Formats: sequence, C-alpha cells, structure tokens
Amino acid sequence: VNEDELTRRLGRKWPLIGDDCAVVPSPGGVDLLFTTDFSIEGVHFTRRLSAEQIGYRSVARALSDIAAMGGTPLYCLISLAVAPWTDAKWIAGFYRGPEKLLRETQTALAGGDLSHARQLVCDLVICGSVLRGKALMRSGAHPGDAIYVSGPLGGWRHKPIIVPRLEEGRKLLGKATACMDISDGLALDLHRLAFASGVEAHLDAIPLLSGATLKQALHDGEDYELLYTAPPRRRVPGIRIGTMAAGEPGRVFYQGKPVPPLGYDHFQKRRS
Amino acid sequence: VNEDELTRRLGRKWPLIGDDCAVVPSPGGVDLLFTTDFSIEGVHFTRRLSAEQIGYRSVARALSDIAAMGGTPLYCLISLAVAPWTDAKWIAGFYRGPEKLLRETQTALAGGDLSHARQLVCDLVICGSVLRGKALMRSGAHPGDAIYVSGPLGGWRHKPIIVPRLEEGRKLLGKATACMDISDGLALDLHRLAFASGVEAHLDAIPLLSGATLKQALHDGEDYELLYTAPPRRRVPGIRIGTMAAGEPGRVFYQGKPVPPLGYDHFQKRRS
Repeated sequence: VNEDELTRRLGRKWPLIGDDCAVVPSPGGVDLLFTTDFSIEGVHFTRRLSAEQIGYRSVARALSDIAAMGGTPLYCLISLAVAPWTDAKWIAGFYRGPEKLLRETQTALAGGDLSHARQLVCDLVICGSVLRGKALMRSGAHPGDAIYVSGPLGGWRHKPIIVPRLEEGRKLLGKATACMDISDGLALDLHRLAFASGVEAHLDAIPLLSGATLKQALHDGEDYELLYTAPPRRRVPGIRIGTMAAGEPGRVFYQGKPVPPLGYDHFQKRRS
Repeated sequence: VNEDELTRRLGRKWPLIGDDCAVVPSPGGVDLLFTTDFSIEGVHFTRRLSAEQIGYRSVARALSDIAAMGGTPLYCLISLAVAPWTDAKWIAGFYRGPEKLLRETQTALAGGDLSHARQLVCDLVICGSVLRGKALMRSGAHPGDAIYVSGPLGGWRHKPIIVPRLEEGRKLLGKATACMDISDGLALDLHRLAFASGVEAHLDAIPLLSGATLKQALHDGEDYELLYTAPPRRRVPGIRIGTMAAGEPGRVFYQGKPVPPLGYDHFQKRRS
C-alpha cells in the first residue's frame, strides 16, 4: 500500500477524496476546501529545526494545498502531540512560528488538540473557500495544454523557506485547466496531475533554484511551487516548462526521455 | 503546561478557541463547527483493540464533540500515521471500522493524510453545522440551573462502545444553557463547564453504569455522555444530577463535599 493506491481505493467509496483539498458545497455561492497535513519528526522534519520553524512549516505546507486549488484560507486547526524532548518554551515557540503567516493570510486559528507521543506529531487542518465550482483540480488538463510552474525548483536542499502561493493560485482561477502544488518532487507530482487528467506530460526545460541540479528539481520534495496547465495561447503567469499530450495517462517525459515517477512518498518511508 | 492552561493562553489571542468545537459563521444562516481529536497508541488506546475498533472509536469521539454543541456532522477528515506493526489488512480494517457510523450519521469522508510514525497516530477532524447562534457552549450555565447527564456514567472500564449522542444534543438546542461531552471524567469536565460559566456545581446523585463505582464515574474518562444545564423548571430530557450555584467558578461538590477536578489529562500522561 502506498498513499496514491490508498487514496484511489478510498476515493471509489468516498468521491470527495483525491485532490489537494476536499471541495464541498456550502450555502452562499461558495465551495469550502478542507486540507489536512501531518508534520512528523523524522519524516517531514528533524529536530535540527527550531520550534518556530517547525510551526511555520506545518502551517505553510497546509496553506500551499489551499493555494493549489485557487482558494482563500479561512480557518486553521492545529493538533500537536509533543515528544518527551519538548517543554513549555518549545510549545510557545511552535505556536509563535506561524503567527505572522496566519495574520497575513487572514487565517484564524480556530482550535486544535494537544497530546503527547514518542516523536513529535503535528496535524494541520485548513478550511478555505473558493467561488462555487471554480476550484482548480488536478484532473482538468487536456492534450495540447501548456505546463507551467510558479517558480524555480530544486527541492528541500535549496528551499530556505516555504511561501504558500496563495496570490498566484487565485490568479489562475478561470485560467488554469489543472493545478496542484509540488510537495513530493516535480516528477511524481506531474505524474499524479497527468494521471488524474488522463494525459501524458512532456517537459522541455525546468527552471532551477540557484545551486540545484536537474535531478533535485525532478525528484526532491518540498518545493511548494504551483504546477498547472492552460491552453497554449491563454495568457497565464508563471514559467512554461512543457506540454501535455494524448498518450498513456501519467507518463512523464523530459526532452523526449521517460522520467520515472520517483519522489518522496511519505508513506513508503523512502524515495518511491 | 497542561491542556486547559494552553487552551486558555491561546484563547486570549484566538477567540474561537476553547469549547468542544470551534464555531464559525458561514453564509446561509448556519454556523460551522470544527473539531479535531487525536487517537494515539498508548495514550488513547492500546493494541489490544482491533483495527476496526480503533477506527470506530476515533470517529465516535470526534462526533461526540459535534453532539456536545447540538450540531449535525457534515464532513470528516481522517489523518493516519501508521506504526511499523500495521499492514495493508490492518489499514483496511481501520477504515472499515467507522463506515457504518459515518453513513448512519450522514458524515462524508472528505479526505485525510497518510504517513507513518513509531506509534500509531490518528487525527480525526469533523466539520458540522448548527443554526446560526444556536450552538450549545460550555459557558452559559447560571446559578440555579439544574445539571443533567444523558446517561449513566462509569468510565472506560464499563463502556463497551462509544455512541455519540447526536440526537440527544440536537434536542437540547434552545433548551440547555450550557453543554459539553464527558470525555475526561465527570469531575474534571464539570469543573471545566462550571469554570467557563463562572459558577460552582453541586452534585446530588450520579447514575452509574452496571458495576461501576462512584469514583470511576467521577474520575475515569471515556463516558461520552452529554453534560448540560437548564433552568430548573424547563422540561429537558436526561437524568438530573445536581444544581449550579453562585460561588467560586469551577468548584465541584458532591453531597456537600468538595470534589477535586481530577480526571484523565491526556497531555499530562496521567490522572491530573
């Protein structure tokens, strides 16, 4: 079982499952978005990071899922199971870390849970909104669509800070045919988007962060840039990196050569 | 730091924090309710329980928080970090456990996250709704109000299955002045309700589950019955157990003797 397989299996029973966020209708002409993201010690971060950094990253990663749908964040729930090595000062730092980001994005901390575990576990839930029926899904790309990213890539080794691309996501509403955020590496996430859309992806050129290699840009995680598609002549912001084509759903090519969908699969505990 | 202290501290900055659920306005004449609940191996359950039981309990406990506000559940997010001792069969059982409960309560599984940790960690989020301004809060009890429970108590040793009191909660809308669910024992949870309401609580008699002792009813957790108050002459369902009085906020008495607010504090890892 890996995460994609389980998602597909559950998605057959529960049709809301499968995109960056769940999209559910709400009164008043909007859809609500829900996303939930674990940040677990030794899986998503190490103790080398400060309490503030861990708190910030947990929130920023969840906000990135809202950005991927073109949504606006509203409320946030922070559940924290602290490890034996933490203390009251650490906990205060953890909650201080995302404070500025929450205020700037007008996301209200609405609740959470507090417990303890052998390793630190945080689960971040964000509820957001988007105009009814307008959320950007992974499944809307067509053959011929151009593929874009919102910024240069290179993975966690080259990413000093995660900036959720909320403004960029909202600008794509009504323009992009498909969108998601790159959390597990371009190769694996583009495979997911192409698979959900039933198309294959051809990459021409990939913009790199300073010092990053092509391999890191393809297979490292934690970029948190947006990955999206649009008809080739539509004006959209971002950097064009390739084109969708009819073919085997989910296949990814770079300059004509197949790219395996290897990236960070958190569930498999290894590069998948 | 214990959970109540942290909740109070965060509640000063973020006013939505502090009750069983966060209550937030939504278009269309309803308020949305959000609750999030950890279920952690060794803290909330042991491996003696089956995968189905662990899955069921995780969902039932979160639904109990919705019931405590008089709400109706809408959507559920299940985040699961599996431990090394689990396998694909276990995971399938975990998701099967709450299936019937989710369907009966018309709660749609809308998403989640999947990861791994040294011990099993589940975080359950439920979004529900309640008529605008009608949610049952902990803070509305007045001196003179009668205190009720929805059923006999006795704690986890005597509770074969958790049944979220959703129907009972909805019947209290417009009738109860304050309400919460009993998760950490009557003594601690009544202390919390009385403290939030600025009153003191006098218990006369406590209905016991078969075989349970008074001490277990007061200080064991996991009852998941509703605890609520109403003006003494108002007709409300349930079992009357005492009366609120003016006095020191949060103090609890049983037949005239003070009862310490000791119960299960998950954060303190021990009876607090």
